[in-house]
Amino acid sequence: MNGAQALMRTLVEAGVEVCFTNPGTSEMHFVAALDREPRLRAVLTLFEGVATGAADGYARMADKPAATLLHLGCGLGNGLANLHNARKARVPVVNIVGDHATHHARYDAPLQSDIETVARNVSTWIRRSLSPAQIGQDAAEAVATSFGPPGQVATLILPADVSWSEGGVPAAPRPRRATAAVDAARVEAIAQALRNGGGRAALLLGGRALRAETLRAASQIAAHTGARLFSEVFPTRLERGAGLPPIERLAYLAELASVQLSGLEHLILVDAKSPVSFFAYPGKASDLVPAGCQVHTLAGFDEDVVASLSALVAALGAERTPPRVQPAQRAPRPRGKFTADKVCKAVGHLLPEGAIVVDEAQTSGLLLPLYTAGAPRHDLLTLTGGAIGQGLPNAVGAALACPGRKVIALSGDGSAMYTPQALWTMARERLDVVSIVFNNRAYAILNVELQRVGALGAAEKARAQFDLRQPPIDFVQLAHGMGVPAQRATSTEGFVRALEQALATPGPHLIEAVVPPTLTGLKLRVLPHLLESLASLPRPLARGLKRAIAP
Amino acid sequence: MNGAQALMRTLVEAGVEVCFTNPGTSEMHFVAALDREPRLRAVLTLFEGVATGAADGYARMADKPAATLLHLGCGLGNGLANLHNARKARVPVVNIVGDHATHHARYDAPLQSDIETVARNVSTWIRRSLSPAQIGQDAAEAVATSFGPPGQVATLILPADVSWSEGGVPAAPRPRRATAAVDAARVEAIAQALRNGGGRAALLLGGRALRAETLRAASQIAAHTGARLFSEVFPTRLERGAGLPPIERLAYLAELASVQLSGLEHLILVDAKSPVSFFAYPGKASDLVPAGCQVHTLAGFDEDVVASLSALVAALGAERTPPRVQPAQRAPRPRGKFTADKVCKAVGHLLPEGAIVVDEAQTSGLLLPLYTAGAPRHDLLTLTGGAIGQGLPNAVGAALACPGRKVIALSGDGSAMYTPQALWTMARERLDVVSIVFNNRAYAILNVELQRVGALGAAEKARAQFDLRQPPIDFVQLAHGMGVPAQRATSTEGFVRALEQALATPGPHLIEAVVPPTLTGLKLRVLPHLLESLASLPRPLARGLKRAIAP
Repeated sequence: MNGAQALMRTLVEAGVEVCFTNPGTSEMHFVAALDREPRLRAVLTLFEGVATGAADGYARMADKPAATLLHLGCGLGNGLANLHNARKARVPVVNIVGDHATHHARYDAPLQSDIETVARNVSTWIRRSLSPAQIGQDAAEAVATSFGPPGQVATLILPADVSWSEGGVPAAPRPRRATAAVDAARVEAIAQALRNGGGRAALLLGGRALRAETLRAASQIAAHTGARLFSEVFPTRLERGAGLPPIERLAYLAELASVQLSGLEHLILVDAKSPVSFFAYPGKASDLVPAGCQVHTLAGFDEDVVASLSALVAALGAERTPPRVQPAQRAPRPRGKFTADKVCKAVGHLLPEGAIVVDEAQTSGLLLPLYTAGAPRHDLLTLTGGAIGQGLPNAVGAALACPGRKVIALSGDGSAMYTPQALWTMARERLDVVSIVFNNRAYAILNVELQRVGALGAAEKARAQFDLRQPPIDFVQLAHGMGVPAQRATSTEGFVRALEQALATPGPHLIEAVVPPTLTGLKLRVLPHLLESLASLPRPLARGLKRAIAP
Repeated sequence: MNGAQALMRTLVEAGVEVCFTNPGTSEMHFVAALDREPRLRAVLTLFEGVATGAADGYARMADKPAATLLHLGCGLGNGLANLHNARKARVPVVNIVGDHATHHARYDAPLQSDIETVARNVSTWIRRSLSPAQIGQDAAEAVATSFGPPGQVATLILPADVSWSEGGVPAAPRPRRATAAVDAARVEAIAQALRNGGGRAALLLGGRALRAETLRAASQIAAHTGARLFSEVFPTRLERGAGLPPIERLAYLAELASVQLSGLEHLILVDAKSPVSFFAYPGKASDLVPAGCQVHTLAGFDEDVVASLSALVAALGAERTPPRVQPAQRAPRPRGKFTADKVCKAVGHLLPEGAIVVDEAQTSGLLLPLYTAGAPRHDLLTLTGGAIGQGLPNAVGAALACPGRKVIALSGDGSAMYTPQALWTMARERLDVVSIVFNNRAYAILNVELQRVGALGAAEKARAQFDLRQPPIDFVQLAHGMGVPAQRATSTEGFVRALEQALATPGPHLIEAVVPPTLTGLKLRVLPHLLESLASLPRPLARGLKRAIAP
């Protein structure tokens, strides 16, 4: 058995079922080993950013890692942005990065580069495997480490000679690190804060705390104490829809998040970071915690979220308090002038039970949370690390993790062009993904950000940097070019029909929605972009914003 | 004047005329500054790998740096592979990488990552600018450093607050580092070796030594002493064609390069690395210098190539020896069965005077050097770092550097799919680029490499990793989708006509050549892939190989 075979056996024994690949010469023995291991599915991608984004999406839905197979430092570089999103999502990913043979490194051949430094951007665990005898142990440790908690990106560098040499020894799965025990004193202190001032307290949920079970416990706490519930701005995976407790997402826009958080005296973190603004803006604070508000951590990234929330429920005596749940409420069939909002409404109108919604729609997806709030239960995956090009690859991974569930990937035109190669893998693997591209022919968000950062003097040349009208991108042709059936919608009725057809037909589909930019003409100094919490904002604020956005 | 304005002014004063951009919020003040600086052309790309690959191609042709504008660590990551190619090409590039405001970094916002470690993979010079007062000095140093020698990638990290704050001070251009003086004793020692054993000596030229002037000097030396001339495997920029001294490229394939180098007693490096195999293979040496052969360095990467060669010519008394030159000899119009070779022949048949040929055609471009050897004078740019996805972006940069010259970019189907977004920028900027995509529906090179590394046991699952037939990629639709006129050729005559039309019409064009894989059925244990030196190989070897490849 050579090193590659021992590696593959170890991965599979540890529960890895899928490997997203873009191999080169140094990975050939790993590729050859595929034919001896029927339990590992190798999913070819045409670009490494698709492989890593798919691994991220897979992990979010499967709660376990996929492997990636990448070609030296450059292949890892191409996959870095979506590994960044996975890192910020705190999900497990195991990278296998092929490298030159150990004896070849000193010759500085063309593809030689410093893989470790690239990996360090996204991985805390980096190991260069030194022998076939060791590689099984290394792989077992990589998988166990990736689970965390918190989930993380583990990068195993595989020299070609370690891969091809005989003497490979597979290793049994390593025990995973246990989640830290609940700290009873901390729970009691938080319970005390909630008893005394529940109405001026909020729970901020992130990471693993946005699933049905934890949302129910959090909702019991909220109902019992009067505390508010927030989700972090960009959830890794949020379970939502009819029958589940709704949760208000913090706004991307710091100015609005500050409104959401104002008046709080206690902010209780549950697998979430203390809120900060996405970017810095001249003269504005980065830390969004209101002055005088005390921040508590109920469950840190390495702690047991379910047990912590249960303990808090018990400490408060809220076991019998019923959680608030979202009533079923379909958005009506949209009609009239075709806008991005109508697309969101149509998604809400037609969303199938158990769908997985991947939202990278930027400005165009603003009202998506509103229109899908009462739709059948679904999962929402978002842009955790802010590195665009996540949506279509995430959809590939989610579809592979959850056969039988429809995936709906919403993407801006700018976003979709970072990793369009994902469409090819959707076609190749016949994945049930409906990709919706909002083609507003602009980096619309940057037009607003330009104003928001107070960049004065910007005129024609600057504006041209956000203008994608010349040439217009034809996503129908792009999709057809990669084997994905596609339609263009230029009317509300046409879009609804296209979506109905796509959802009714197995396999991948793309719908290009040609819509005006959502925020054109917006005079507000604040940006409602990505303000996906509109659905549950205080009504007057939500109404005011909606009027401002869609006049 | 804010920091961004001071930075831009400094870049322009130092001779930077083009900036390839893919900006985000943290770069907004740099973008806004564009409208005050008419001397800087901002070329928008839809993906950072296009921006960095364009900067590489620009530098190869302009002999000076373009700037890139990238969005934090993830944007730099997306651009890393083509910066790797630029690093290996030893050309100047100046990256401007926007970052969070200095006071924002500690909050670990979603896009926060360690930019320096990513940059280290490709840059020796990395600077985080700390104030608007300092940024001009930093930028001037970045540009001066990028020139080297050797040319290099300089990365300037630009925090958003340094960009937006007033107090910017532009800086005058810094003096560049001088090339090291010619070492007379070394020149004399090499002259002595050539006098004694010119017939068993060779000059290996790379980097800046593959231009007309240096090729002529090297050819004089070869003619005078009997020494052979080799170019490195992947030239940064090779001037070739009718009227210029021809040069034999070392083969990509180590086995064949060893044949080329066998019997040598002296190998004289001129801005080139001592030859090593591209990858390591089981049981094969990485160092390709024959046993007993002495390696001399006439000009290192930081030395004066022109002066060194002139000094050697003088030391040998070869000033009056005429260089050998390639006679003009057009490839005939190809006819008959359509193959990748016919595409190469058609390019040779029609190549316009002064064309720039970007070759990332992998296996399909095998005979390109043969068929273009006697074509009108042209420049050849190749895959210096082995990180595919270089060809189309390089063509963007070359076209911007050389308006009025036709650029012909040859790409494999696999290669073209790494950075297809380059087509959009070609259309947007109306660049005179004819992209030829060899669509053999395979990672053909990997089928051969699989055999070459001796990866046994590979069967259906492994082969599927190199098979791009399902779904077939339609490059005509992809090109149309990004605004580039395109045709598909499935016959030799059809291809010749399509190329004639494309060359006769200004602006970008794409021709998809649907061809069989070049190496199908090849039983050789050695791979002639990328053996672009066929043109000047000993005739029996060349003929034998040609028969083996195209039976």
